[in-house]
Amino acid sequence: MAARTPELRLHPDRLFPADPETRSLSRWLYEQVRDLPIVSPHGHTDAAWFAENEPFPDPAHLLIVPDHYLTRMLYSQGVPLERLGVARRDGAVVESDPRAIWRLFAEHYPLFRGTPSRLWLDHALHEVFGVRERLSAESADRIYDRVAEQLRLDAFRPRALFERFRIELLATTESPLDDLVHHRALQASEWKGRVVTTFRPDPVVDPEFEGFRESVARLGELTGEDTTRWSGYLEGLRRRRAFFAEMGATATDHGHPSARTADLDRAECERLFTGALRGLLSPEEAERFRGQMLTEMARMSLDDGLVMQIHPGSTRNHNRALFERFGRDVGADIPSPTNYVEALRPLLDRFGNEPRLRVILFTLDESAYTRELAPLAGHYPVLRLGPAWWFFDSPEGMLRYRRAVTETAGFYNTVGFNDDTRAFLSIPARHDVARRVDCAVLAGLVAEHRLEQDEAAELAVDLAYRLVVEAYRL
Amino acid sequence: MAARTPELRLHPDRLFPADPETRSLSRWLYEQVRDLPIVSPHGHTDAAWFAENEPFPDPAHLLIVPDHYLTRMLYSQGVPLERLGVARRDGAVVESDPRAIWRLFAEHYPLFRGTPSRLWLDHALHEVFGVRERLSAESADRIYDRVAEQLRLDAFRPRALFERFRIELLATTESPLDDLVHHRALQASEWKGRVVTTFRPDPVVDPEFEGFRESVARLGELTGEDTTRWSGYLEGLRRRRAFFAEMGATATDHGHPSARTADLDRAECERLFTGALRGLLSPEEAERFRGQMLTEMARMSLDDGLVMQIHPGSTRNHNRALFERFGRDVGADIPSPTNYVEALRPLLDRFGNEPRLRVILFTLDESAYTRELAPLAGHYPVLRLGPAWWFFDSPEGMLRYRRAVTETAGFYNTVGFNDDTRAFLSIPARHDVARRVDCAVLAGLVAEHRLEQDEAAELAVDLAYRLVVEAYRL
Amino acid sequence: MAARTPELRLHPDRLFPADPETRSLSRWLYEQVRDLPIVSPHGHTDAAWFAENEPFPDPAHLLIVPDHYLTRMLYSQGVPLERLGVARRDGAVVESDPRAIWRLFAEHYPLFRGTPSRLWLDHALHEVFGVRERLSAESADRIYDRVAEQLRLDAFRPRALFERFRIELLATTESPLDDLVHHRALQASEWKGRVVTTFRPDPVVDPEFEGFRESVARLGELTGEDTTRWSGYLEGLRRRRAFFAEMGATATDHGHPSARTADLDRAECERLFTGALRGLLSPEEAERFRGQMLTEMARMSLDDGLVMQIHPGSTRNHNRALFERFGRDVGADIPSPTNYVEALRPLLDRFGNEPRLRVILFTLDESAYTRELAPLAGHYPVLRLGPAWWFFDSPEGMLRYRRAVTETAGFYNTVGFNDDTRAFLSIPARHDVARRVDCAVLAGLVAEHRLEQDEAAELAVDLAYRLVVEAYRL
Repeated sequence: MAARTPELRLHPDRLFPADPETRSLSRWLYEQVRDLPIVSPHGHTDAAWFAENEPFPDPAHLLIVPDHYLTRMLYSQGVPLERLGVARRDGAVVESDPRAIWRLFAEHYPLFRGTPSRLWLDHALHEVFGVRERLSAESADRIYDRVAEQLRLDAFRPRALFERFRIELLATTESPLDDLVHHRALQASEWKGRVVTTFRPDPVVDPEFEGFRESVARLGELTGEDTTRWSGYLEGLRRRRAFFAEMGATATDHGHPSARTADLDRAECERLFTGALRGLLSPEEAERFRGQMLTEMARMSLDDGLVMQIHPGSTRNHNRALFERFGRDVGADIPSPTNYVEALRPLLDRFGNEPRLRVILFTLDESAYTRELAPLAGHYPVLRLGPAWWFFDSPEGMLRYRRAVTETAGFYNTVGFNDDTRAFLSIPARHDVARRVDCAVLAGLVAEHRLEQDEAAELAVDLAYRLVVEAYRL
Repeated sequence: MAARTPELRLHPDRLFPADPETRSLSRWLYEQVRDLPIVSPHGHTDAAWFAENEPFPDPAHLLIVPDHYLTRMLYSQGVPLERLGVARRDGAVVESDPRAIWRLFAEHYPLFRGTPSRLWLDHALHEVFGVRERLSAESADRIYDRVAEQLRLDAFRPRALFERFRIELLATTESPLDDLVHHRALQASEWKGRVVTTFRPDPVVDPEFEGFRESVARLGELTGEDTTRWSGYLEGLRRRRAFFAEMGATATDHGHPSARTADLDRAECERLFTGALRGLLSPEEAERFRGQMLTEMARMSLDDGLVMQIHPGSTRNHNRALFERFGRDVGADIPSPTNYVEALRPLLDRFGNEPRLRVILFTLDESAYTRELAPLAGHYPVLRLGPAWWFFDSPEGMLRYRRAVTETAGFYNTVGFNDDTRAFLSIPARHDVARRVDCAVLAGLVAEHRLEQDEAAELAVDLAYRLVVEAYRL
Repeated sequence: MAARTPELRLHPDRLFPADPETRSLSRWLYEQVRDLPIVSPHGHTDAAWFAENEPFPDPAHLLIVPDHYLTRMLYSQGVPLERLGVARRDGAVVESDPRAIWRLFAEHYPLFRGTPSRLWLDHALHEVFGVRERLSAESADRIYDRVAEQLRLDAFRPRALFERFRIELLATTESPLDDLVHHRALQASEWKGRVVTTFRPDPVVDPEFEGFRESVARLGELTGEDTTRWSGYLEGLRRRRAFFAEMGATATDHGHPSARTADLDRAECERLFTGALRGLLSPEEAERFRGQMLTEMARMSLDDGLVMQIHPGSTRNHNRALFERFGRDVGADIPSPTNYVEALRPLLDRFGNEPRLRVILFTLDESAYTRELAPLAGHYPVLRLGPAWWFFDSPEGMLRYRRAVTETAGFYNTVGFNDDTRAFLSIPARHDVARRVDCAVLAGLVAEHRLEQDEAAELAVDLAYRLVVEAYRL
């Protein structure tokens, strides 16, 4: 018989340093930001949830199956993704009983000790569903029942939770080919929740993206431009950006393998574009083309004011067998060394001093923070540093980020927090972790007399709320 | 006259954070693991010590001369290795008076302030030999006499110390050409101490290893295979692995300059192998051949179940003049940047999802932890992360390791501690440091309410004992 | 109406850890080094200040305009450098009213929260000028007046401040083409302050330095050597080194883009040198030539005893537009990844074991500390590690430095602190920060029983004073 499951607690002082003075300063700062609204300028939730406001599915398909942070960890310890209900490309049968998935996950919950996933899930269970015992093999069924039952209530539909979470703005991310039907529906609706899109052109600017040629053709159809020609292609992109801006977008997002940019002459652009459409580019040429497109996007941002986000450095789908079986986003995206200083130079040479441009940089290569990113952001007026991202959206990741970045770039070349998630229920948890860690950092500076208390209080609000609104032009 | 030497203390709270709450949690956790047996699955002690059980030599030749952590530090401050008794290749006279070596070392002992060598040596002097004054020029002779006297006692012979140290298992490392005579003697003896070998094939799989061709020929003689041919060469390796497994080995070890792997077709393998035997490979081809051999070793591990350890990234014998004068292992092995994401791809493409394979990765390039190693180990089922290694087998190194790795890979994709040492008397000290630091890390998580106390207690035992037994299939 | 500006405090415990025990140990250690004289072996102050002893200019042109740490931060937030009084190359009008510059800076002072610039400037205002309110838009004029008024007093002239700061030695940095007229004047004067030069040959050893050919010609004129030939060029350099040594220099300094060294044969040296004079070298050849010149400088150091400092890894003038408008040193120097292990090998192969040579290494790529620099310095007798540099001359940078370096290289392969500044008034602040942080590090080791109190006290003095005197042969 399994042991009685212990209590689930969210300690009010969690994530605050143990030293009593610093802890008490952290608490004081946190009280001033705890209840500020959530502004989420970058993420991957589904606009349909809010447009249609249907109930969420069962606990497993809401909280586990789509979350590659969770499934990869079990996979790393030998659990097949099929048993976790992850759909196969070939349509082969996978586990479909949500309770079985939930139980399997619960048995493996100790794997998450010390990880942010554990903090987020505990927070969602405790705060959203009122769970008061730790998830375990023994408690799995009771918690499943409690969560499932509540998910059927109106108070747990997407819009109700959006309001309960005090979300002031939530950005989704869509391809230029998306018709944004849900965003249009939201604009037409009477619901006041602000859900905006983000322009993510990877499928039509990356020649190595699956279906690039077809996507560019579709771009032509959508815009009435001749996208077989460089000028028509650019004009097509311009039009879709305008449409996205109309639908509330204030930003674009670029998920390239590297931060490489280029500033080529027109003949070379046309040559590469033609090669891209014909599938004839070498990997190096494809990389150059993507680099050119970052510079083109910067040029368009100068006109339409959309803020550029660059999320480079992930080697996507590293596990070939798994990609063939399950497709993208199953936890096999692995960072690689990322250079910024030479990579960004062509773009910065062209637009680095433009007062109207804003480029927000992210990294999965933390060694770049002190060496490249903070010095760049501490100099170029167009640059800001995005928050600790992906694997570093975690207490230690955030601490390292602030310690690495602040002394060179200051706090004011950073842009507040991104949750960058498709896990809607984790959003309050993630913002709460970020606020707590930032307050802990500020409290540490005050405790060591490197910052005065009044300044820390102002900064706490800046980091939790003000900077994100300003940086993303919200 | 030199000042009176201060007392040597091992404070019971050493390595625990100063904050009283965290310290008291550390202490509580440490009490639960302090007396667990030592499992040492990777190291470089000499099986002959335990097979023959002769007394150890004098204090200098036991504790100083063979320890390149110690000799390199004095060398870095201008002390010639000859004065420390390190043997020259040309047989020229070096200092042979152990007391003179000991005194010279003692004079320079302040160089080790803040280093792990200091912790280890103080621990050995205090705990093994009962020394109660700090090593210094002034105390050198008294301590020398005390240590020398005890080394003559039966209670200080290898087997007695092995038992006194509560070692449950000790792995040595041998070349495939080794006849394992001492391991055989141990198996035949009545002594119960468990000393196993590890299969380290570098001399016969690295075309740039001194004497590669002769070693491959010797492999043929030992196994009766025709090792001038690729298939016979592989078969010869297979047979030696089987012999090592019989002699207790559960693991192989690979000390390559990089983590590069390859998955070449048979014709290319044969071509490279022939070139290697003839000494005709370019450095790039030699690297490719080594990469192929990692993949071959993985293939064999699938059959015989030996766990693979990859220790990449050391530029061996960086100091050419010193290498010419003294040979290998005199402290001039310097790490260099090490990539894993692309380097391991061929091996992982082939075997990354095999449930029976286990590959333990190490690094001397800490920037790879958050960027590459934790994401890889947090996804691939065959991968586990070895502990902080070599220069990072130290309190700060271990803290950085846990902070870098845990949030992405969790605790359960790590494998417990390795002492990786030839300094037998430092083994208890090294495991004690690791246990203390892990307890301090866990205590910090509990103090910040990121982990519950019952979980930390379970983890403390996992990290000190359970994970190593499981990871190395002991 | 602007809010009343808060008090400016320099808390006596600033930069000490919050934990009471560690803080009290920090305080105890700091008391033993606080009043030690300042030895500044590497910096960029102007010898003319001390030779001529004229009053410093107004507050803005003393404290803000020449400090690219300050101007770049405002520039990063959109303030044109012209408004900060930075001179343009084309002679166009820039802001010349010091009070306007001061006010603009004061408005933006919150940008510096959490940065070392804030610590330094607060320290200078508080300690040098007796300011007791925080700099802000509201207090700007009052503080300006107070500072301006004092700058007119004799007690605020360069020599008086030099003495008040308790500077025992201050090194400046000059080109081999400099006539050192001010250093000569200082030697001739009765003033006792010790201001020495440093030999910085970049303009005559880097073929890509602006005006390289003319500089080499000038070297010939100054020395009477035929510097159109390799042998005359080397002899010219030797003569200037001798002259610098006569003027007090004990060190050379090398600011190369990488740490690359070379050890080429004479024919290749001559070929490259001729190509360099004709402006015909490819970037790769220029890099090889610079590498060769580091080895030549090492060879000369063996003869004349000058200590070599290598400051590699900064990509100078990254912002092309700004370089064209304002020239060098306006905050657009960005670090890039820097390798040492292979780069230094040619020099170390040649001279790495020479007892008389000393090479002090710096880095802007912190990932090299644990991977390359500490292992190199912990082995090679010629190598020492310079302190945390430039962007890392900051509390967190220094903490990371000590934690990264000490366990492998120890404290005694480091060389004490460098302020590396042209901001004379920040010198006491910078040394004070370094002393406080080192005391905090030592206190932490004592609190965790990793070091004894008597050793920490000795080390505190070593790090603040003794090591720098020894390392720079002062």
